[in-house]
Amino acid sequence: MRIEAVEAFYLSMPKVEDIGDGSQDMLLYRVSAGDYRGWGESEAAPLVSIAALVCPMSHSACRPVLDSVLGETIESPDDIPRIVRQVRAKSLDVLQAPHALSGIEIALWDLLGKARQQPVYELLGYKRAEPKVAYASALFGDEPQATLQKAKKLRSEGFRAAKFGWGPYGRTTAEADAQQVQAAREGLGQEADLLVDAGTVWVNDIEAATLRLPALEEARVLWLEEPFVSEEVDSYMELSKRCRGVLRLAGGEGAHNPHMAYHLIQQGGIGYVQIDAGRIGGISEASRVVERAHASGVQYVNHTFTSQLALSASLQPFAGAETDWLCEYPVEATPLARNVTRTAIAVDATGKVRAPEGAGLGLELNLDAVRQYLLDVEIEVGGRVLYRTPELVP
Amino acid sequence: MRIEAVEAFYLSMPKVEDIGDGSQDMLLYRVSAGDYRGWGESEAAPLVSIAALVCPMSHSACRPVLDSVLGETIESPDDIPRIVRQVRAKSLDVLQAPHALSGIEIALWDLLGKARQQPVYELLGYKRAEPKVAYASALFGDEPQATLQKAKKLRSEGFRAAKFGWGPYGRTTAEADAQQVQAAREGLGQEADLLVDAGTVWVNDIEAATLRLPALEEARVLWLEEPFVSEEVDSYMELSKRCRGVLRLAGGEGAHNPHMAYHLIQQGGIGYVQIDAGRIGGISEASRVVERAHASGVQYVNHTFTSQLALSASLQPFAGAETDWLCEYPVEATPLARNVTRTAIAVDATGKVRAPEGAGLGLELNLDAVRQYLLDVEIEVGGRVLYRTPELVP
Repeated sequence: MRIEAVEAFYLSMPKVEDIGDGSQDMLLYRVSAGDYRGWGESEAAPLVSIAALVCPMSHSACRPVLDSVLGETIESPDDIPRIVRQVRAKSLDVLQAPHALSGIEIALWDLLGKARQQPVYELLGYKRAEPKVAYASALFGDEPQATLQKAKKLRSEGFRAAKFGWGPYGRTTAEADAQQVQAAREGLGQEADLLVDAGTVWVNDIEAATLRLPALEEARVLWLEEPFVSEEVDSYMELSKRCRGVLRLAGGEGAHNPHMAYHLIQQGGIGYVQIDAGRIGGISEASRVVERAHASGVQYVNHTFTSQLALSASLQPFAGAETDWLCEYPVEATPLARNVTRTAIAVDATGKVRAPEGAGLGLELNLDAVRQYLLDVEIEVGGRVLYRTPELVP
Repeated sequence: MRIEAVEAFYLSMPKVEDIGDGSQDMLLYRVSAGDYRGWGESEAAPLVSIAALVCPMSHSACRPVLDSVLGETIESPDDIPRIVRQVRAKSLDVLQAPHALSGIEIALWDLLGKARQQPVYELLGYKRAEPKVAYASALFGDEPQATLQKAKKLRSEGFRAAKFGWGPYGRTTAEADAQQVQAAREGLGQEADLLVDAGTVWVNDIEAATLRLPALEEARVLWLEEPFVSEEVDSYMELSKRCRGVLRLAGGEGAHNPHMAYHLIQQGGIGYVQIDAGRIGGISEASRVVERAHASGVQYVNHTFTSQLALSASLQPFAGAETDWLCEYPVEATPLARNVTRTAIAVDATGKVRAPEGAGLGLELNLDAVRQYLLDVEIEVGGRVLYRTPELVP
């Protein structure tokens, strides 16, 4: 099959708030080849990524992403990493390229799975999708009381694990943060797995992060996520040595190539590597990190804060890996992210999820919702329209 | 002073060729504060970077770059790294942000230097600009004979050092590459310093690169530049151990933050770190790499393949460092890159250059040339025009 079309859709909530909620807008792709269509989502700034798709060539290693995708053949799983390598080489100097590419790569897997009537994880070599404990991914409340109520609600909804992050955490005192963590533990109950996400708030300040460790250890938090920005691997390593009990560091969501994740695994001392297939360059790139994590005794976890489509994509690379037992499950996504698929990956009675058994990513798009949130975009350079929002039903 | 305007201009040659010449287009900035204006250039895909400037906010850590710049105060050199940190935090998830930022940061230094009537290197703490050997940066000819002629011409023009790269190098056999290197050495003469740029052609293939080492060592090449893509630090380290004689590895131009450069220095075993101020986030970010390089016994070199404005910007961070004696000097730039300034940094009779003594970056823009190559760009999202090419003379 020949890749005949790659269409990018910029969806957005009517109003985007200045909060750490990445589900307020969406870059959605539809890829067409032969009789099939695949869908994928990039976890990326939509307008900037669209520009990376269609920008005029600057030189031989600074070309638009679409140049390396349109017209390529896709017959087998091996064709997808080949296309990824081509994008990375020909768009080497387009910094945004991996973010722009990720959703296309995912859509190619969805398309190939539909063509072969197989779920993506089978194309990746897994025999079945293993059940994983779904951890509800939520933002801290503005006050501990609000966090307590959120945690209680998640517990009542059947979640056996939860993560709280962003909001006020790390922004005032260690005491205030301790109260937030205690509230989360209290609301969730003593049995549940609790995780905390600092959202890079300390940038590279090891001492500021260290002040928060005792409260995290006391609440038996499994991981402290992203105390620092991804590049600060030396800071990660130092803080990892200071963690006691079950507490480990987690990071990796910022990785836009497998090497950044390897670097955190090898030099950062993290215990959990969190990969967003919608950022790292897609499912094949994420799969390379799964292998490296296993070889290093590090647990692989998906990073997903948006739609069920993104959740399915990020589950595929480790769907059949028994040792990786946790799965980030978005629970506070916007109506946009919730409604963009008609079907969802359900949390079962034991609080677990698994990758869908349907062909490709195994989910059905909701074109009505896509239409409702679709933004009109037009990019014109030198009198030529390089991009205009495509028709949803051509 | 308050930053009142940041204007981005997308310049381009009428026709952009599919070759490794990064001077075929340009992202130029004009920043205004108080009574002053500064100019800067990003070495980046212009359209994608413009989108990063003006994109709608996706969430609190995925905001347009301009949000962190417009309205900020600039009184002293410390204000510039503060603005850089703010961009990195608030545009954390806009992958293109460092590329978009770089030219703005450079323009801020130019502006501050003009306000204080000091060259940028003085603002950075250097007492004077040291002379550096200008190495002519050229592409290999398609055939060794063409490379020989190019090298002879550079020698006759007074260059005491030259680098050849890209073109056919690394794309066929080690024998063909050896002939190219021999031709360069022959044309340049036995006394000159010779450098070779592989332009990431082997991606991560250590054995392919190793096959080229004997010819490089025989021709007394000082460095082999970018045998691999920047992330492949382990491959860099392995190849660095195989270099004999004066040959060292060079890399770092792909760094879009100082950590990527640190990583190459510490884990990649390079002997020369090449930084483009127009990519790494600007002059202040490049200065951080200078410090780290000196602490590690690695030589710092600018990466510049475009305009004299870019050359001045990339010279500033190591202008006063005596141990860093080489300077990349573009000689094959397009008319666009050559004409965008009225003044240039001259190569003296001993083949050396130094950072200009004038205020700021010390160069005068040529607005006629800017106008000649300026592209009209318009970006519209949801019925709102987010960017339209600004008036050159408002």
